[in-house]
This record gives sequence, C-alpha cells and structure tokens, in this order.
Amino acid sequence: MKAELIAKEKKTIHELDSLFKPKSIAIIGASTKDLSIGNVIIKNLVHYGYKGPIYPINPKEPEVRGIKAYPTIFDVPGEIDLAHIIIPSKFVPQMIEDCGKKGIKSVIINSAGFSEMGEEGMALQTAFLQKAKQYGVRVFGPNCQGIINSDPELKAYCDFTFTFPEPGSISIVALSGGVGAFIMQSVFDLGIGMRMYASNGNACDVSISDVVSYYGEDDGTKAIILYTEGFSNPKEFMDVAKVVARKKPILAMKAGRTEEGAKAAASHTGSLAGVDIATELIFEKTGMLTFNNEEEMCQTAMAFATQPYPKGNRVGIITNTGGPAVIATDELVSKGLQIPALSERAKNILKTTMLPEASINNPIDVVATGGGKHFRSALDVLMDEEGIDAVYINFVTAPFTDTDEVARQIVEVNKMKKKPIVCNFMTNMSMERYQQTAKIMKDGGVPCYAFPTTAAKALGALYKYHLVRSRNIGEAKLFSDINKKQAETILIEAKKEGKTFLSSKQVFNLLGAYKIPLADWRISDSPYDVAKAAREVGFPVVLKADSESLVHKSDMGGVVVNLKNMDEVLTAVEKMKNKFDMKDLKFLVQKFLPGGRELIGGVSAKQGLGHLLMFGIGGIYVEVLKDVAFKIAPVTEVEAKEMLSSIKTSKLLDGVRGEKGIHKESVVEIIQRLSQLVCDFPEIREMDLNPIMAFENNAMVVDARIKI
Amino acid sequence: MKAELIAKEKKTIHELDSLFKPKSIAIIGASTKDLSIGNVIIKNLVHYGYKGPIYPINPKEPEVRGIKAYPTIFDVPGEIDLAHIIIPSKFVPQMIEDCGKKGIKSVIINSAGFSEMGEEGMALQTAFLQKAKQYGVRVFGPNCQGIINSDPELKAYCDFTFTFPEPGSISIVALSGGVGAFIMQSVFDLGIGMRMYASNGNACDVSISDVVSYYGEDDGTKAIILYTEGFSNPKEFMDVAKVVARKKPILAMKAGRTEEGAKAAASHTGSLAGVDIATELIFEKTGMLTFNNEEEMCQTAMAFATQPYPKGNRVGIITNTGGPAVIATDELVSKGLQIPALSERAKNILKTTMLPEASINNPIDVVATGGGKHFRSALDVLMDEEGIDAVYINFVTAPFTDTDEVARQIVEVNKMKKKPIVCNFMTNMSMERYQQTAKIMKDGGVPCYAFPTTAAKALGALYKYHLVRSRNIGEAKLFSDINKKQAETILIEAKKEGKTFLSSKQVFNLLGAYKIPLADWRISDSPYDVAKAAREVGFPVVLKADSESLVHKSDMGGVVVNLKNMDEVLTAVEKMKNKFDMKDLKFLVQKFLPGGRELIGGVSAKQGLGHLLMFGIGGIYVEVLKDVAFKIAPVTEVEAKEMLSSIKTSKLLDGVRGEKGIHKESVVEIIQRLSQLVCDFPEIREMDLNPIMAFENNAMVVDARIKI
Repeated sequence: MKAELIAKEKKTIHELDSLFKPKSIAIIGASTKDLSIGNVIIKNLVHYGYKGPIYPINPKEPEVRGIKAYPTIFDVPGEIDLAHIIIPSKFVPQMIEDCGKKGIKSVIINSAGFSEMGEEGMALQTAFLQKAKQYGVRVFGPNCQGIINSDPELKAYCDFTFTFPEPGSISIVALSGGVGAFIMQSVFDLGIGMRMYASNGNACDVSISDVVSYYGEDDGTKAIILYTEGFSNPKEFMDVAKVVARKKPILAMKAGRTEEGAKAAASHTGSLAGVDIATELIFEKTGMLTFNNEEEMCQTAMAFATQPYPKGNRVGIITNTGGPAVIATDELVSKGLQIPALSERAKNILKTTMLPEASINNPIDVVATGGGKHFRSALDVLMDEEGIDAVYINFVTAPFTDTDEVARQIVEVNKMKKKPIVCNFMTNMSMERYQQTAKIMKDGGVPCYAFPTTAAKALGALYKYHLVRSRNIGEAKLFSDINKKQAETILIEAKKEGKTFLSSKQVFNLLGAYKIPLADWRISDSPYDVAKAAREVGFPVVLKADSESLVHKSDMGGVVVNLKNMDEVLTAVEKMKNKFDMKDLKFLVQKFLPGGRELIGGVSAKQGLGHLLMFGIGGIYVEVLKDVAFKIAPVTEVEAKEMLSSIKTSKLLDGVRGEKGIHKESVVEIIQRLSQLVCDFPEIREMDLNPIMAFENNAMVVDARIKI
Repeated sequence: MKAELIAKEKKTIHELDSLFKPKSIAIIGASTKDLSIGNVIIKNLVHYGYKGPIYPINPKEPEVRGIKAYPTIFDVPGEIDLAHIIIPSKFVPQMIEDCGKKGIKSVIINSAGFSEMGEEGMALQTAFLQKAKQYGVRVFGPNCQGIINSDPELKAYCDFTFTFPEPGSISIVALSGGVGAFIMQSVFDLGIGMRMYASNGNACDVSISDVVSYYGEDDGTKAIILYTEGFSNPKEFMDVAKVVARKKPILAMKAGRTEEGAKAAASHTGSLAGVDIATELIFEKTGMLTFNNEEEMCQTAMAFATQPYPKGNRVGIITNTGGPAVIATDELVSKGLQIPALSERAKNILKTTMLPEASINNPIDVVATGGGKHFRSALDVLMDEEGIDAVYINFVTAPFTDTDEVARQIVEVNKMKKKPIVCNFMTNMSMERYQQTAKIMKDGGVPCYAFPTTAAKALGALYKYHLVRSRNIGEAKLFSDINKKQAETILIEAKKEGKTFLSSKQVFNLLGAYKIPLADWRISDSPYDVAKAAREVGFPVVLKADSESLVHKSDMGGVVVNLKNMDEVLTAVEKMKNKFDMKDLKFLVQKFLPGGRELIGGVSAKQGLGHLLMFGIGGIYVEVLKDVAFKIAPVTEVEAKEMLSSIKTSKLLDGVRGEKGIHKESVVEIIQRLSQLVCDFPEIREMDLNPIMAFENNAMVVDARIKI
C-alpha cells in the first residue's frame, strides 16, 4: 500500500505541475468587460508578471486587455498547459472535450452551476468529468477561485482575487474561496511571504489531498495552511497528511465544528459538511496543528515561516518591560512550556554585562534603558545555555534607546538559526523612527507580534510541532492468534439471516474469535441446560433473558445478578419464562464478577474513513461527564494507551481512596484486538462493549451489542 | 456602608480632578536632555496640545524646550494643579512637603527607588506618604508612567510614552506601564478613540479602585479597559467595581494566572501578586468581562466603543461569501448566541429584494455580486425582525461590486443604533479603492474586524455584557434565628484556650448557633454517657474518638460506623479506650446516616477580601476531578444556587440512574448560613465541612473542622 501511495504521489506531482507551474495559460471566456472574471484573471496575470504566454479565448474580440485573443483554443498556435474556463456551465462538458483534443493538461473551472446547484448541475459535472477522464485532463474546481504560484520564475496568478502576495515559504489550501482569500490577505498583511495558493471550490477532481501532497513535495514550501469544512475522501487525506505532516508543519482549521456551523457549511457547499469529531481525530492522528481561530493560525504561520523548531519546552525570556513578561509567562506555561532558572554560568556572565538594575533571573529583564549590547549579551547567554530550547523577547521601543541597534543585535543572533526566537515587538508604527526598527526586524526574519500572548502562542505552536514530530504512534499490532475465518463465517451467517443486530451467541463468538476476553458464558434454552451451564461457569452467576425482540432487557427485569446456588438459578429461570413469553427465548448464563471497575468501549463506522473506537469509564462517568476518548482505527498500542490516559477521570484507573488500580495492559489489548476486528470487517457498523469489567489482574467484556 | 461608599466616591472624584483634569502642570526635574523623562513629558504635553500652562522646574536652566523654567515651585507665579516629580527618590519626601506648601493638589511621581527597591525604598515611600497625608496631596505612582486625558478641551499628556491617541470613549487603567502602553497603542492602531489613560506603578495612594471609580463617574467614558496583576485592597476594588460595572462595561485582564506567571509578576512589582482564584471571583461577582488574551480584549473594546448592547442572544448573519459565515457561526454558537430561522415575513421581503442566487435563510447570503441595495434590504429586514437581537456581517470587498455603496448602506443603518452590528471586513488595505471603503465604515462607527472569529468574539462580549447587566445576584440573606452571642462566646473561649483548631464540641456548637443542620450528636467521656447518648440519638450510631491530639482519627481507627445496638457501642468504646491512651479522650456519638450523597463545603479567609466559600461533591469527585465551585462571601441565594449548578457533576444532585436527587434547598441554605457566620466572624480562617450528607428531604453536616 505504501508503494502505491508513493506511486500515486509521484503521478500527482507530475500531473499537477501543469496546474501549479503552467507554461502557458488560456482564458476560455476572456472578456473585455472590466470587473468580469474573464477580464480580472487576465489583469491579475499581467499585473503579477506571469512569465509565460497568455491566450485569451473569445469568439468575437481580436484582443482582450491589449493581448491578442483567439476565437477558439484550436486557433492558438502554441501548446496550452492550463486553461481557465469561465463559460456557462452547460457548455463545459463539450469544452472539456475540446481541451482534451487540444492537449491541455489542466483546467481551472471558475464557472458555477454544477454540484452546488442540485441535480441538473450534478449531471453536468458528471458529464464533464467523464470527458476529463477520457482525455486525461485534470480539473480544478468547478465553482472555484483558482491557484497562485509566487515563484519569481513563474508568477502565475490564476485567480480573480485581489491580494498580490510577496514570494515566500507558506502555501495555502482552502476549500472556501472566501476564507482562502482572507487567509492570503492576512499572510500578506503580516508581511509573511507566500509560496502557493489553491482554492478548489467543488473539488470534483483535484482534491485537498492532492494539493497537500503536492505542497509536501514542493521544496519551496516550508509550512502549509489548510482550511476545510470536511473531506470528501477522509481516508485518502489521512494517508497523504500523515506523510506530509512529518516533513513540514500543516496548520489546519476545520469550520463547522458546531451543529449550527455545520448546517451553515452544508448550505453553501452542498455536501461535505457534518458535525463530526472525525476531522479533529484525523488532524490528531496525522500530526497536524489544529486551530479554532483563523487569526491565530495566520499569526502562528509567521513563526513557522522563519524559525527552526525547538528541541524541548524550556524557554528563556528577555524583556525590557515587566508586565508583558508576566502575560507571556502565563501563556507559555499554559501551552506546556517551562521558564527554567538559569545556570550559574549564565548568571555570572549576565552579572557583568547587564545594567545594575537589570534582573538576571529568567525572565531576564534588561530594563527599559537596556540597549543593543544588553539584548545581545542576554541572547548570547541563552543561545549557549544548555537548559534553554527557545527564546521569547519582549521589545518595547523605549524612546530613550537606540532601538535600531537593539533590532540589529536580535537579527544577528536570529540569523544563526540556533534556537527559535519570537518577539513581542511593542511600538508605534506611525512614527518613522520605529518603522525603521520594524523593518530591520522584519528583513532579519524575526517574527514580530504586537501582543505578548500572541507571540507566546506562536512559540507554543512551534513547540507543539516538535512534539508532533517526536511522537511516533508506531504501527497497529496484528495479533496472529485470532481466527479470522470463524469471524467471517459468523458475519456471513448473520447477514444471511437478514440481521441488523447479531444474536448474543454471535456477538460472543465473534469477540471470542479475536481472543477478546469474555466473562465465561453459556447460552441455554431449557432449565436443564441452564443448570448445567451454571455449574460449568461456577457460582455465583448472572442470568440474562436472550431474545431478539428483547432490546432493553436489563430495564425490563431480564437480568438477575449474583445467583448463588442452583435453587436461585431455577427460580429465576421460571420467573423469566413467565415474564417473557417469546418463542426464541433463551438464557445467557455468565459468571458473576462483583467488584472491579466498569468500563465501556465502542465502535462506529464513518463513511469513507473506517471506524472510530471509543473508550471510557462506565456508569455515571459516561452518563454525567461524557468522559470518553476516541481514536480512528487501526489503533496502535501507543494510541490505545493514550485513550486510557486522556480521559479526565484516568486517575480512577490507577485506583483512588485505597482501591486497587485496574490491569491497564488488558484493556489496552482489548482495544487493539477490537481495532483489528473492525479493520478486518468493515461491514461492522457499530459495537457497544458495555460493560467491560476491569480488575487488578485482568479485564473482560461482560456484555456487547454489534450492528452490521 | 453604601452611603459611605457614595461619599467616598464623591470625594475621590473631586480630588482626582486635579490629576485627570489639571488646570496647570509643573515638571519638577525638567531636563534639557533629549530622551530624558523630564524632557519627554514636556515634549509630549506640547506635542499633544495641552491647553493649560506648563511650568518646568529646574534650578539651573532659564528654559526647557523653549518654555520658561523656574528654579523652584515657589517661584512659579500662578497656582499649580498637578506636578510631575522626576528627581532622585531620596529628595521626594521633602519635595512632597514643598508641593503641599505650594498648594499643589496632585503629584505624579515618575521616579523609581521606592517600595519596589526593598526596605530603604519602602521607608522613603512611607515618609513621603505621611507628608502627602499631612498636606492633602494625592499621589499617583511612584515608579509610574502617568495619566493622559484626550479631552479636546484639555489634551493632557502627562506621560513619557509615545502613542498619541485620538479622542474617544474608551478609558484605560493598567498596573503595568509596559502593558498599559501597548494596550493604548493597540487601541490607537485599531482606530478606536481613547478617553483617559492611567498607569499608576507602585500605586501607593491613588489606587486602581480610585481610577475605576473616577472613570465610572466620567460621562465621556463609555467602556473601561483594566489590566492588573493583583489588588492591594481587593475589598475596596470589589465595592467600587460592583457599582461601575452596572453603569459601563469593564473589560479586565489579570496576569499572573499561572504559578510561574505569578512569580514573574512578584519579581517586577515586589508585592501584589499571587496565584489566586480570588481575582477571577472578584471579576465574576462584580460583573466584569474577563480576558486571558490582551489582543482579544483590545479588539473587543472596538465594539463597545460604538455599539449598543443586544437585548438577547439571537443573531442575524448577512454575508457575501460562504466560508466566513460558517466560521462565524461556530464562534457565535460557542459564545452562547443563536442563529435562529427568519420569520415568513422576513423571507417574503427578501425573496423580492435579493438576487436570485442569494440564500434567504439565516445566514442571509447576499452573494459576492450583491450590492448596496441587497445589503441594505437584508439589514432593514433584520432590524425590523422581532426574533433578532444583533447583526453580524461578513463583507468581502469583491472587485466587481461598488463597495463604497455597500459601506454607506451599512453605516446608515448602523447610525440608527437600533441593534448592535459587528462586521468582518475582508479587504486589501494596500489598495486605495478599499481604503476609501474602510474609511466610510470607520467614520460611520462600524466595528470592522479582519477575521470572522474575531468579529464573532466581539459580538459575544457585547452579549455577555447584556447577561452581566441582567444578572441580579440580590443581597445576602440575613437569618434572624441565629444566636450570634453564643457563637461569639465559643470563639472567645477558643481563643482564650490558645486554640488554632476548635474542639469538636466547639465546632458543633458554633455551627448549631447559626442553625446549620447537624447530624444529631453528643459528646461523652465515659462508657455510661456514651450509652445514654446512643439511646438519645437513636440507633444505628457512629462512634468517633475525640481528642485534640488526634488529627486524622478516621485513618487511625478512631471512627466506627453503623453500630446497631448497645452491645456494639460498648465494645467499640472499650477498643478505642485501649487504642487511644489520651487524657482528654472523649467520645463523639452521632446518628449514622447511610445512603445520601456525600458533599463538601469549605471556607478560607483571603487577606483584604474576606472569605471564599467552596462547594463540591465529596469522595472521588473532589479527589479525581477537583470539581468544586467558589464564591466570595457574602454569598446570596442566587450565588449559592449557582455554586450547585456550576460544578461539572451537578447532574448528580438531580439524581441519575434511578437514584433520587438531593434536597438542594437545604444545601443552598447551609451555604448561606455559613456565609453569614464567617462574615460575622472574620477571625475564622478556615472551615472544612466534610462530609455534608444530602438526602431527598434534607441535608446535614456530619463532620467539620474550624481553624481560627
């Protein structure tokens, strides 16, 4: 599968070069009307300085914006790499065929009127896609903005937006054009250079996964900003993102995280959306950095564009003003960073280099009158300090300081790229003097923020990426002692019987086939058999009425626990027989397991993604606190352990108030076996393991429900 | 007390006019050296256009920055309202005396070298304060920046910072000059006008409370931004803030919220700091709007400067682009706002006024080609819609739209001030065309944000202020059936005995004096008395060994529960007698109360504030989840109810899984009686009520510990 993936990537890269690095561009639907899309795109290409030939296609006009126009693409003398299509939707299928015939490799369909417009539009989309496949034309869009490549050798602005980014190392991909545009604008306003941009609207062919994969292979892209409202093929995205996120940071935001937001998303994209925890889990599993705040995401990108990643969480703070260091400390600590004490070595140096009123602890307060040499000495000390992984600076441009000199010193140290630096640069940008200082900082690649919390958040994100890269969840374990054939037989049988829910017997046998430990059980259909079963499993026992028409058996008196002898068992059987007058009534006899901690597990299938696994502590913990953890299958051992440790009440698993803790290893194994089971059988829709009883030395499933 | 408070306010206002509205200003320590504070302040006063006379005081120079200087203040011909003091700290006490003699009403001491510099500095501070009291001079600082008043009639820039704010309605007060300066800068950068500014450093006389009270009375101040790292007199602040926050919003941030942050704060202010939940509780009790992010606080201020407050949580969204509406919806909903469906009336109007491709649900998508008239119609509809309390707009400046016209329409509706409007204005400000649009929006008082989440957060804050103003916690109930005299006697007795912890008998009698319900109890010192006690309270009983030297009695076998008859009681007494060989050994006999829900209550005294009350569910809930709620005493009935409902596991109080809920009214009453008790007796340092057993029809304290 990995080889396939790599092959797919290679193929994607090759094909998408015509989209992201077009050698020539045709605008089908070029218009002489100002402000029309067919005009703006040509204007933008020219304004941005596109290096290749531009071919306006217009049946009537001899030229558009002073550039020679052609009646059809077939009249264009040279080859066309990429074509914009800005004609009414009904003409698009034929046009794609023409593009194929002309040998055009990629098209950007700006026109709307497809899948977002109901059935008729969907039919058109299907029609042109078929033509595209037939001729090997890659389609970007429809109903989209386009792409931008800021490479100075190319300068392709294939888009009708109005921000003209400086070349740089951040690449952006956004499902929503509106959001993509303001992210690009924000990156521009922050003075961060941009590498590539893509906003693919309906995304009928070139997907967000394709774009992320392409950015991943692009040497000019140092970090990726991703905005989406969902994934049409989450599994594919996960496979791609897993590879890319190890190479470069992906800063990601998924809107529609509330029910109401998802509704709003559905109304404007027509499909993709849905409130799901799945996207968040995808982001986590693949190691993406997630944001709920697009302003913070853009600001953070500034640090990723210029800084190395810290190798640990220990921050040295240099400040020339008190309060902002307090604010920064609060935020850094909240993000898991530390502000450790400095070594004696460091303090001894600072004692000789700092002003007498300076504070030589961490934060190092160089005080407002501290100049370039004081900042420089503090920086040098922190860069040499073994116990420090990153540097945070508060730099207020005090009027009595040579602020340019301070900036030059910071820049010199920054250029060594030894440890990451972020700076809260507090100044009045309407004063020329400080504009100059700001320019030195910016040109020197120091990420400058106007607020301490914002700067601290950015450093927190750099650290988070260090954690993401260091985290190795490993591969999912494949247990070889399972009996896949048996499980398959059970599921085939259940399907043949037309069942939605497996019978108790099928449930226990299926779990048993994957060696998921079960409370010893027997299913019997006569009092005589029940007695035999009770003897076999050993007293005390639990008796459960078992019938397909009995769903909430415990609420209806269909469960009796702690039956201590044969008399009690037979009395209970008689009572149930009288109570439940069903033809298929059987009795489930299980070993009664008092004490122990009640846990729950669960599985649910997610369209296009596989299964989500759930774990939690049962009873009031799940009911009152909804204290559960989710992961996407396959779940590795590391992830299974994280499921146990990430719930709020995880301390209960270790034992509190003199109670013994539970045998976590057993639970971790149950989760992994469950993961293997559902990965082997995608037809399993839902599972509830409730309860799983956990003890000091083992854990076992007591009751379960499986839906196919 | 209220009358006192009002009187104090009136007095404060009168006195602080000389500080915030000075008719003339002397600069003691005026300097001819550029960049020195004694020079910069004069420069700033002149540059900002101060309307009154400026008197530089310098023993040697005939003039400073071209303004006639005087050797001493006594040489100044006219009256001096306010003096800056920028001379070495050791000369300050004498100078304050001189100021007093000259009749100067307020001084701003910019000089450092006082309480922040250890004992010697503290002595100087005490010395000048004594002189100030003697002559009735109000002192601002020392070790501070100063104040600014932007009133066009005054233009007092009594500060050495470098931001020159436009007049406006936001007033700022900050403990830290560094933070104050960048907040002011940010308010300036956001184009929000500022009214007054104050950063009071060591705050030895004029406190943050005084400033907030002054801003509260100032008609020109519409909202207040407050930054602090703690309060020297929290009780005073609380009394002031409670009054002011009802009149106008106070946007507040307290740094030092983490242990490390508090440490950083302590190192630069020398005092105030401390990790405490108290500040947060003060903010909550007084109805302030709290922030952990100073950037968000400043951005939010923009909406408060111009907009009315919503009367409910129902938002109408107008958008001309899809994605940003999704992001906004997510954030609005997270802040407790709703995006309700529109009425048929509204939809019918929109059907006729919108473009055919527009969406006439909520969000109303006027689409990118929608112009001024479409925005206007959507706005009019929402302003008339009964079910809508506020309007959120996404306005991207699409190149094919007359964006100025859209802006003009928004401004026209905004000027009616019918309902609050916030706007996510997405544009490229480097293009002249859009600068013009932005100017129309800004001049029209529309709060414009560059990101949907940011705009949504601002609207969320406006709504929160509506909630704050609507919330009436009422007055604390004073129970008249209590026996204060008895409680006093108990406490006097305990103090006489030199006790830190009250004896069991004292604890139960004290709680009993305030009619806090107790599990029926007797204290006996002989087996005979124990038997009698057990008969009186009725079986089953609990027996507890009671001795001052026995602290963790339950861990040591000093508690036996569920004794069902006399035999069991006497056996237990004998065992305990053998086990605990103490002279003062007594026996506490209590009614055994099985079942019920185990709750905990607590009290701790906070320096300068009074007491914090705590409530939670006992056992693992407090141990594992730390699920407790705090309030500052006196606690009203509303607040006591909030304590019960605000814990995460509050559902347990209602009963889950078939269990009966508890009698909340009884617990609410216990909390209120406890509050009255500790307010009556500030000498109580700590109380633990653990457990309080709560049942279906009542609740009672079973065990307690009281520290004085």
